[in-house]
Amino acid sequence: MTTQEQTQASARDRSSYQPALEKLAHRFGERFSANRTVREQHANITSWHPVKVPDGVVFPESTEEVSEIVRICVEHRVPIIPFGVGSSLEAGVNATFGGVSIDMGRMSNVLAIHEDDMDCVVQAGVTRKQLNAHLRSQGLFFPIDPGADASIGGMASTRASGTNAVRYGTMKDNVLALTVVMPDGSIRKTGTRARKSAAGYDITRLFIGAEGTLGVITELTVKLYGIPQSIAAAVCPFPDLEAACNAVITTIRYGIPIARIELLDEAQVRACNLHSKLTLPEVPTLFLEFHGTEVGVKEQSDTVAEIANDWGGGPFEWASQPEDRTRLWQARHDVYWACLELRPGAKYLATDVCVPISRLAECMVETKADIEATGLVAAIVGHVGDGNFHVSIMAEPEDPEEMARVKGFLDRLNLRAIGMDGTCTGEHGIGEGKQAFLIRELGDTVETMRAIKAALDPQNIMNPGKVFTMPTA
Amino acid sequence: MTTQEQTQASARDRSSYQPALEKLAHRFGERFSANRTVREQHANITSWHPVKVPDGVVFPESTEEVSEIVRICVEHRVPIIPFGVGSSLEAGVNATFGGVSIDMGRMSNVLAIHEDDMDCVVQAGVTRKQLNAHLRSQGLFFPIDPGADASIGGMASTRASGTNAVRYGTMKDNVLALTVVMPDGSIRKTGTRARKSAAGYDITRLFIGAEGTLGVITELTVKLYGIPQSIAAAVCPFPDLEAACNAVITTIRYGIPIARIELLDEAQVRACNLHSKLTLPEVPTLFLEFHGTEVGVKEQSDTVAEIANDWGGGPFEWASQPEDRTRLWQARHDVYWACLELRPGAKYLATDVCVPISRLAECMVETKADIEATGLVAAIVGHVGDGNFHVSIMAEPEDPEEMARVKGFLDRLNLRAIGMDGTCTGEHGIGEGKQAFLIRELGDTVETMRAIKAALDPQNIMNPGKVFTMPTA
Repeated sequence: MTTQEQTQASARDRSSYQPALEKLAHRFGERFSANRTVREQHANITSWHPVKVPDGVVFPESTEEVSEIVRICVEHRVPIIPFGVGSSLEAGVNATFGGVSIDMGRMSNVLAIHEDDMDCVVQAGVTRKQLNAHLRSQGLFFPIDPGADASIGGMASTRASGTNAVRYGTMKDNVLALTVVMPDGSIRKTGTRARKSAAGYDITRLFIGAEGTLGVITELTVKLYGIPQSIAAAVCPFPDLEAACNAVITTIRYGIPIARIELLDEAQVRACNLHSKLTLPEVPTLFLEFHGTEVGVKEQSDTVAEIANDWGGGPFEWASQPEDRTRLWQARHDVYWACLELRPGAKYLATDVCVPISRLAECMVETKADIEATGLVAAIVGHVGDGNFHVSIMAEPEDPEEMARVKGFLDRLNLRAIGMDGTCTGEHGIGEGKQAFLIRELGDTVETMRAIKAALDPQNIMNPGKVFTMPTA
Repeated sequence: MTTQEQTQASARDRSSYQPALEKLAHRFGERFSANRTVREQHANITSWHPVKVPDGVVFPESTEEVSEIVRICVEHRVPIIPFGVGSSLEAGVNATFGGVSIDMGRMSNVLAIHEDDMDCVVQAGVTRKQLNAHLRSQGLFFPIDPGADASIGGMASTRASGTNAVRYGTMKDNVLALTVVMPDGSIRKTGTRARKSAAGYDITRLFIGAEGTLGVITELTVKLYGIPQSIAAAVCPFPDLEAACNAVITTIRYGIPIARIELLDEAQVRACNLHSKLTLPEVPTLFLEFHGTEVGVKEQSDTVAEIANDWGGGPFEWASQPEDRTRLWQARHDVYWACLELRPGAKYLATDVCVPISRLAECMVETKADIEATGLVAAIVGHVGDGNFHVSIMAEPEDPEEMARVKGFLDRLNLRAIGMDGTCTGEHGIGEGKQAFLIRELGDTVETMRAIKAALDPQNIMNPGKVFTMPTA
């Protein structure tokens, strides 16, 4: 926390929140809680950043109720922290200055599905798995898949992407319109169901990635896709990281519409073998998936197998049965649990960066050397089609010497990515954790963000302390 | 112009601009002009809105020079109108309150091409044809194609799209980063070359579609694509608009990655026959293009031919030779000239709306009936894969009775689209012409836009009078 923030934190006397908490308790009854356990469940629990607990949690069921909550909070200058499922990796749901966590979990209705238009309208608390279960009978799906069963609202707020982004884009590309509750409690619709529009500023995209600092997303209209006629998945081992990266670059350069192309380093493969009972050779490995018609999938996969072979990789091992495919991707999604096996008892620290794909091999190889030189237990897994990769570090947050080494490593990793004209986060967001890197990456453009924040949320009540700090109001 | 704007216009005493104009003349020499003809060339010339001429035109050659110009203008509160090639269709380049037009035409350098990353960095004045000529030898292309040979900066400012958007997206989807000169003259970089990022607010998307009201875009990093191995184009006649629309819906619903799917009504086909010496049957007709591998293109086009047949359309007439294909798309792009043949001597008025694709047939059919009932000479052409269509009206702007009918028609068209959960503009922008419809479409969300504008451009010098009006400063 900066000195400025500390001043701000003490300036916010949390006892002044009491009248608002009482009003919320009165208005929402059992749908408001000041219970310690409930509050702790709504603080940062998935990252290594220190936990900061909100003063109360409220469970609205409609946009209008969210508006009521915001009006009560703004009257008493109480911070608001929108909460989806809490899977944020940079402490985006921490109550930096205390305040009220708005748990969107009861706003989990799919409001409309428009099959012909391939879109749907959902409340922000719907999770991606809930949505896809809902859509299956219509032959449609929502492709964004960040691993965790995150809420669609939370995914929009952090501009999430995940394994399918190389083909289907990120949340930025898949939201048509939002309903948001603004910092003054007013309710705004940011767009229509038209597939494209040139009507005014892109307020939809402004809220996507704002991490709840400009308002509360309550409803979303999102794009859907037809479930592909044919899906094929495979794993492919490579002699080293560079060869695997080069195969990826060639695949992308050829314009092959690959649906997923994930790279696991040998440590990550070892972890997956241990946890998911796979028997993969413990070398850098690509996990691939192809979507399309039968002819198309065959053509794509033949071409990529050839490319892999050219770079010394292979052979492809196919998961042609749906259950094999599920097992494979479950193993990929379980890297969190798998990594814990690399160092039992240690805590999992996740981070991500994203670089132009031409720099990916260099960035990963340097990072791997840095992991070794720093003496860390860490694995690398990447959405490499986008140039995005994660480092999962298994560490002891209680050990200051080790944490100093971890922080040094994280500094070097982020600056390495930024130095390669990349970004300090491809999909995790800034939250509390990456604010210094955001400034290193975009410089005074952060001032433009601050000016927008100050204009829309002059009291700084919307998820304060995230993305960037604001001068004391 | 609203009363508020009139007050503002008179409040801006244009004689007060003189010191700034003199400074610019002194600083830029022959690259500044106050010549009447030059100024007229930099006002609105492609739409029916009354022409408003700037007080001077300046031709910068670098971002730093744009910054200098902005600093001079802001000191004297002189409006700035960024100018690409002037192809804006809603008077986006009109000098609503006079001021200085910044002609980006000399900033036409391609600064870097990154083949492996499939991106490039260009100055804002590069046109899409210049860029594609530059890229051809690398086997890459930039797909956004609004018809006019617009500048890339202008295309970003109006969130342009065009015929290829159904497959490749719009400008919103194809810009990675911008360099912008802010209203105070500071220079900001909004992003990196990473393919995706979750680092802070999406300032890139905020400038895309802002129509120059938040700053001047001077450089862009845009995505590129490999020139497809195989391209095939065809035309396909249909018995009526509904049948054609239904074929489009089915094509999109099947997830066929069609590159272009354009619908011309019978009036538009007649105009194209007249102008481009085609011999197409004068019925609603789809122009189609398929990109992919040879196998892929064959599969896609067979499927779409079957779909067309199911809806009573066909047969496909193929343009398999590159020169036939060029001729076909040239005819599509020449609708402006073609429509002039429908009523020699009349002026061309273009407008566009975009609706959810399930409502497209209904919207087009009602619009066609409205054209007839209103007694207008007008043709319809649409980027129908996105639900976006244009009405080209051939009218006499000097005839007040006819213009009253035209305006009544435009009102009904825009409200019809908005009433179908669509937008008043898919790609032309708001400019001067569609501000009332923007408010009808998004309501108080326009207040959010105004708040952002006021925060970033407190003096309202950046293209004032566009997108929305601001209270008198």
